Amino acid sequence: MEPSVTTQQDIEQHLTDEVVASFARTPDLRTRELLQALTKHLHAFIREVRLTEQEWAKAIEFLTATGHITDDKRQEFILLSDVLGASMQTIAVNNEAYGNATEATVFGPFFVEESPLIGTGGDIAAGASGTRCLVEGSVRDTAGNPVPGARIEVWEADEDGFYDVQYDDDRIAGRGHLFSEPDGSFSFWGVTPTAYPIPHDGPVGELLRAAGRSPMRAAHLHFMVSAAGFRTLVTHIFVEGDPQLEIGDAVFGVKESLVKKFTEQPGDQPWTRTEFEIVLAPQQ
Amino acid sequence: MEPSVTTQQDIEQHLTDEVVASFARTPDLRTRELLQALTKHLHAFIREVRLTEQEWAKAIEFLTATGHITDDKRQEFILLSDVLGASMQTIAVNNEAYGNATEATVFGPFFVEESPLIGTGGDIAAGASGTRCLVEGSVRDTAGNPVPGARIEVWEADEDGFYDVQYDDDRIAGRGHLFSEPDGSFSFWGVTPTAYPIPHDGPVGELLRAAGRSPMRAAHLHFMVSAAGFRTLVTHIFVEGDPQLEIGDAVFGVKESLVKKFTEQPGDQPWTRTEFEIVLAPQQ
Ligand SMILES: [Fe+2]
Ligand SMILES: [Fe+2]
Repeated sequence: MEPSVTTQQDIEQHLTDEVVASFARTPDLRTRELLQALTKHLHAFIREVRLTEQEWAKAIEFLTATGHITDDKRQEFILLSDVLGASMQTIAVNNEAYGNATEATVFGPFFVEESPLIGTGGDIAAGASGTRCLVEGSVRDTAGNPVPGARIEVWEADEDGFYDVQYDDDRIAGRGHLFSEPDGSFSFWGVTPTAYPIPHDGPVGELLRAAGRSPMRAAHLHFMVSAAGFRTLVTHIFVEGDPQLEIGDAVFGVKESLVKKFTEQPGDQPWTRTEFEIVLAPQQ
Repeated sequence: MEPSVTTQQDIEQHLTDEVVASFARTPDLRTRELLQALTKHLHAFIREVRLTEQEWAKAIEFLTATGHITDDKRQEFILLSDVLGASMQTIAVNNEAYGNATEATVFGPFFVEESPLIGTGGDIAAGASGTRCLVEGSVRDTAGNPVPGARIEVWEADEDGFYDVQYDDDRIAGRGHLFSEPDGSFSFWGVTPTAYPIPHDGPVGELLRAAGRSPMRAAHLHFMVSAAGFRTLVTHIFVEGDPQLEIGDAVFGVKESLVKKFTEQPGDQPWTRTEFEIVLAPQQ
């Protein structure tokens, strides 16, 4: 008989195996898969970093504080997921790259159902402060054919970095929807996007400070584009030259293909002009 | 020039790399290591299971509920860590196997500072209900030399599965401390341990139910043994034949080496007897 030697690695691996096995009778197969994979990755993390008991206690404290600041209006766990790139990774996994289709990015917390219909050439600003901006483009399929009648929802913060819903009044500003024309084209007026911070007075803000990271999001304009037979596209466009693009977007929403030139137009009241060519992937 | 082909895998890996890079300037090196490793493992989990947006939302909801049920008396995040084996894995990592030294296990939430001194042969029960039990043994170093004067803290639940601190009165029962004798030996009376459930009326209980898992802990008696020059040992002993050992301990605290025979002693008032030989690892 061989002498029985139990190494530290055996002990740790055995524990992981035991926890994975405890989920083996989970009736729902997808739940089982998720719990077993979560266990493996969580244990691998603890083992790799040799997590100390003090660090474990600090993590419990952090999660507790994150839970306690969360209420109907403030979702600190979503912020946490955002700043760890977990939200964006989930979006990446659920919006697999398809040919030359436009890339997706985060949805964010400021979309509102039943936005005003503004129509081609309309203005979504409705009083939102900022430099006026004309956005023009078209919606096409991956073969380049126009997609007429696509519903285009757009929303954005004002010059002070606030969405309408962040004000105490009932204003509706900086949001609206329109439909692409028979040739796929669209155009509307809004304001040139401005960088703004995610809420950073809670545990997630503390984490960002500890990491020397900025809470600012790169300036952006939200789009959600849907049409029958196509995958709904949730995305933004970003502003070329925005210094925050270099500093880093707090939630990792930036894709190079989504950074657009906002060309300044001189005049008494200067304005900007940009173009966004949207390509929809087919419904799967 | 090669044509630029961006695969789905490139997109996902690039995102992970970007988040890891965002932590590169974290001033504290250990914090940096932890945040970067957490990011890698979290992203690997999301990518491996192809987490859906609905599952992500469910996870946010679960964490929120876990935060909201947590207060001064109830720590649901610790329970979550316990049932995922993360607490026990942290203990494993911080109590590396050392020769024939006694294995460590979870501390649990029911230790109290300044327990009564009971002395050799004393009784920790102090009115706690249950079958009386005599615990005998000795404290030694890994070479087999006695360790005299080791402080031995012991605590346990009563027959109904409750610790003294879980009652509304101020009772002190089922806990105490003593010191090993010059020959390393110790002995004390208590009650035969009983299986009891962890709190399971919250999100963690829901998780256990979804997984078809028992919230019960295997019956156990807690020990914390400290002596100058030795690593403090936090452990339990378990009861051979306890059916919960087969069903599974809800927090994965069981080590085979810690399962002890509690021999039944006949008589008017039956009692049990067990032995625990404790081996302390040297201080590092
Ligand atoms: Fe936004
Ligand atoms: Fe216990």
